Amino acid sequence: MDISVVNALTYEEFVNLFGNVVEKCPIISAAIWSHRPFKDLADIEAHIMGFIHSLPDSGKEGILRCHPDLAGRDLQSGTLTRESQEEQSQAGMTTLDSAEIQHMYRLNSKYKERFGFPFVICARLNNKADIVRQLNERLKNDRAAERERAIEEVKNICSLRLNNIVLSDIQTKL
Amino acid sequence: MDISVVNALTYEEFVNLFGNVVEKCPIISAAIWSHRPFKDLADIEAHIMGFIHSLPDSGKEGILRCHPDLAGRDLQSGTLTRESQEEQSQAGMTTLDSAEIQHMYRLNSKYKERFGFPFVICARLNNKADIVRQLNERLKNDRAAERERAIEEVKNICSLRLNNIVLSDIQTKL
Repeated sequence: MDISVVNALTYEEFVNLFGNVVEKCPIISAAIWSHRPFKDLADIEAHIMGFIHSLPDSGKEGILRCHPDLAGRDLQSGTLTRESQEEQSQAGMTTLDSAEIQHMYRLNSKYKERFGFPFVICARLNNKADIVRQLNERLKNDRAAERERAIEEVKNICSLRLNNIVLSDIQTKL
Repeated sequence: MDISVVNALTYEEFVNLFGNVVEKCPIISAAIWSHRPFKDLADIEAHIMGFIHSLPDSGKEGILRCHPDLAGRDLQSGTLTRESQEEQSQAGMTTLDSAEIQHMYRLNSKYKERFGFPFVICARLNNKADIVRQLNERLKNDRAAERERAIEEVKNICSLRLNNIVLSDIQTKL
């Protein structure tokens, strides 16, 4: 990536390209466009994280609530975003048998019932067994700790999505 | 509307229903779900406005940048959200002749060049002539004043979209 290419993008091009680095929250990339010119990719990421951390707790929970369930309804019905589809697929969520789907459904429901937001984990960094183990473990957290934990996962997802975009040929996407 | 029906919605139902009251910013309705129970519709609106006003200037500009141009590419290509399509249609933006489309294109471009965000106006409260007049007038503002002016329009759009949802039979949308 040449950062000068990114810095020359209009806000429309920038949001088209980076709008989903935080799932269904184009407002975030749209906001940080105001901070151009960026020094490098890490600078873009730092602005995104700064924006997220400046939000009130309800705003952080809002980000989490824009995420789909793992192996949930959107996956079954084909309505995931492209990025989520790829990530859930890599973590083995697309090849669960019906007992495993039911198990994930029960765990997700329990988690949402307890915290009021969905279980978010960076699927690219975890396999099926990790995901089930961590879901069970994180159910023991209190809401504030779990909110922060989940936002850390949003950060990991964002970082990998950003890398994915800039390591491919950015010019072909415009 | 019975506010108790709204207060009983899961976050998924709430975001499905209210997710686009601020254009392409589901994070906002997803965030304010944390503040249930709501007293009434005005209380929901107050929480949305409170959330928007708590954002840094870049965040407010981010909201504006999630809006489509009036009579712009999304309208021509049929990729507007349902709400925007209805609003732009009511303001006469779908029946412009090619000279008028070109005129709007030039004004929108000039505005975006000057401010770094698109011209946002509550199309339901303005006809074609009002829109062109206000676009020309608001081009004279400085960026800070215009950002606040545009956020007032976001507020008007949101208020009408909220009313539209709750005045229809909420039960049939779930």
